Amino acid sequence: MKALSLPPRLLMGPGPINCYPRVLQAMSTQLVGQYDPVMTAYMNEVMALYRQVFNTQNTQTLLIDGTSRAGIEAVLVSCLEPGDKVLVPIFGRFGHLLAEIAERADAEVHTIEVPWGEVFDPEQIEQAIRKIRPKVLALVQGDTSTTMLQPLEHIGAICRQYDVLFYSDATASIGGNPFETDAWQLDAVSVGLQKCLGGPSGSAPVTMSDRFVDCVRQRHHVEAGIRDPHHKDASGSRIRSNYFDLPMIMDYWGDERLNHHTEAASMLFCARECAVNLLEEGQQAVIERHKMAGVAMLAGIQAMNLAPFGNLKHKMNNVVGVYIPMGVEGEQIRSEMLNTFNIEIGTSFGPLKGKIWRIGTMGYNARQDAVLHTLQSLETVLRRAGHKLSPGAGVDAAMDVYAKAIA
Amino acid sequence: MKALSLPPRLLMGPGPINCYPRVLQAMSTQLVGQYDPVMTAYMNEVMALYRQVFNTQNTQTLLIDGTSRAGIEAVLVSCLEPGDKVLVPIFGRFGHLLAEIAERADAEVHTIEVPWGEVFDPEQIEQAIRKIRPKVLALVQGDTSTTMLQPLEHIGAICRQYDVLFYSDATASIGGNPFETDAWQLDAVSVGLQKCLGGPSGSAPVTMSDRFVDCVRQRHHVEAGIRDPHHKDASGSRIRSNYFDLPMIMDYWGDERLNHHTEAASMLFCARECAVNLLEEGQQAVIERHKMAGVAMLAGIQAMNLAPFGNLKHKMNNVVGVYIPMGVEGEQIRSEMLNTFNIEIGTSFGPLKGKIWRIGTMGYNARQDAVLHTLQSLETVLRRAGHKLSPGAGVDAAMDVYAKAIA
Repeated sequence: MKALSLPPRLLMGPGPINCYPRVLQAMSTQLVGQYDPVMTAYMNEVMALYRQVFNTQNTQTLLIDGTSRAGIEAVLVSCLEPGDKVLVPIFGRFGHLLAEIAERADAEVHTIEVPWGEVFDPEQIEQAIRKIRPKVLALVQGDTSTTMLQPLEHIGAICRQYDVLFYSDATASIGGNPFETDAWQLDAVSVGLQKCLGGPSGSAPVTMSDRFVDCVRQRHHVEAGIRDPHHKDASGSRIRSNYFDLPMIMDYWGDERLNHHTEAASMLFCARECAVNLLEEGQQAVIERHKMAGVAMLAGIQAMNLAPFGNLKHKMNNVVGVYIPMGVEGEQIRSEMLNTFNIEIGTSFGPLKGKIWRIGTMGYNARQDAVLHTLQSLETVLRRAGHKLSPGAGVDAAMDVYAKAIA
Repeated sequence: MKALSLPPRLLMGPGPINCYPRVLQAMSTQLVGQYDPVMTAYMNEVMALYRQVFNTQNTQTLLIDGTSRAGIEAVLVSCLEPGDKVLVPIFGRFGHLLAEIAERADAEVHTIEVPWGEVFDPEQIEQAIRKIRPKVLALVQGDTSTTMLQPLEHIGAICRQYDVLFYSDATASIGGNPFETDAWQLDAVSVGLQKCLGGPSGSAPVTMSDRFVDCVRQRHHVEAGIRDPHHKDASGSRIRSNYFDLPMIMDYWGDERLNHHTEAASMLFCARECAVNLLEEGQQAVIERHKMAGVAMLAGIQAMNLAPFGNLKHKMNNVVGVYIPMGVEGEQIRSEMLNTFNIEIGTSFGPLKGKIWRIGTMGYNARQDAVLHTLQSLETVLRRAGHKLSPGAGVDAAMDVYAKAIA
């Protein structure tokens, strides 16, 4: 068998992106047992680290062993009983995903939509809440399908007013854009590692407020094979998934240490390094680095005679949509970027399929050199494909952004 | 923040165990994009490798991104519609788990049980099938809670005769004991990496027969956000989980490459190395190595005046239950093994809690030196705790097993 061997791609799409080297190294750490005091101490440390990442005091802050949508499903199937009402404002692909997961839980799903490239006003959401009176509001923060960032800071107060549980999936945005679980009064948040946190896909950090925990604890049933004879199950309906049963997962991460799954230790080490990396550099500094890379990339794109997609006022720091210009073949350009320059930029789907590329500047790759290499290579490929541009203008515009920041 | 730093434990419990070094190294590989031709080629290669691991021609052989119970849940929730009958013969903790997951899918769950330490005769299973006429038989191969290995070779023919889908979870046994998906006529199999395959928890290889695929494809619904306008959903009821929807996961791994989750690339690289490691050494050679380590460990245990648990005729090669002798405190011994010798042996739960230790010899640790260090250290700890034994007898008995094999 050939040894594993991968080309040195620079991943400038909407994620996954290149991991921080220390995150990759952490995964090579040899294991200890799942109930080894060293392991449980690291589990506790990871909980504490992600409280900082999420900016929360929530005790229940832990990892779901799966990709980011595993975190989404764990939150939704644990809190939604059949017939429960949920409101999902949709501004891109991942809103559809939240609605679909809630539908499969047999919740009564209500959706409102804005065109791709826009976000919701708090008033629109309040109006829908007042009409529908849902148990849960499920709202994506950053949707890579459209590059938009939904403002969340005024939504929590509305949810409290109408006694609605407020859940957000912040996979695409966390680390590269502000996120304040407690200040914004969120009840549940799920994310992944593979965007601005600079890790691989495969672990989904989740945090839950006490209100949310009270809600899911009403459905607490201990697994038959390990049940204490004196245990009394809660009165709520049993959660339909064993794997995503948050009360059981809390009992595994908590002092009870009741056996559930076997924690994916390598992914836990990796999640730890993602958090440490963010916190050592400083959350604000990392957000600034993402903002700078995003502004520079946007400036470069515009200077190359390319038009950005969507409402730029609400663009995430870490990804930009770029209209594929007339006369060039979008997939051809992507393929040349990949094969000639080892740089990946993203395609699109749904209503934007074939219309825009998506270019990310996330995590480890939210760096000046990564931005500049991408712009230079894109210029070369576009120029040779016949797109009219002023040579050097793109990279110069991006360098100006960085130069001004230093000055 | 302190750097990640773990003690050099020798993990001789029921799993997880120490990973093969090449498996750990693979996880440090830098990523490529999820639809990069290099990535999809590795996904295809992993499918081909696990066909060999499972001894099957099944096209649908892929990874579920989660721990081993994620694989179990994916199989059961994808094939079981509410009200479907499933038969679960239970001979340990993981049988209870299969039953519980099926219950949560609102299947009509029928169980039969044998005492812990025993396995089923094919006749018992046939009798139950004849009576219940289930859609699915769900049967664990190796249950670490009891150390028993359920013989499967005659069960497939019975299932075909009664038109029952035959599913087995072989997480604890695969790699260290024979497993023949096609020869034994299995329809679905799920495993994990963290036992005899010598990897960490976090990826669940699954294989599915064409019969099984036909069954779950009847419930095929494409996700809203990426649905082609011309797509026609299948007529069966929608699978209740998005994350564990096997038809959608097949569309992601197949030529369609329809977006579902973002494949956990680091775990995929790791799963690849687990398979390559097994196949390069040779499946039969690896099974023999496990058998030898298991026989040596058992001989050593018995020579130390300790009694093994259960029906030894049906013991897995890779783990042995050991009655905690009179006069010693089981958890005290485990704690000294861990703290003084950096060796982990396992505790037990359910009806065996406080009665037996479980000592594993799996994957990388199915080695003579690991067996001998464990026996020597256990002797020292037991001797100092007052257990009567003949000094050196345990390690000598194990060394004799290895010496005889060479002669």
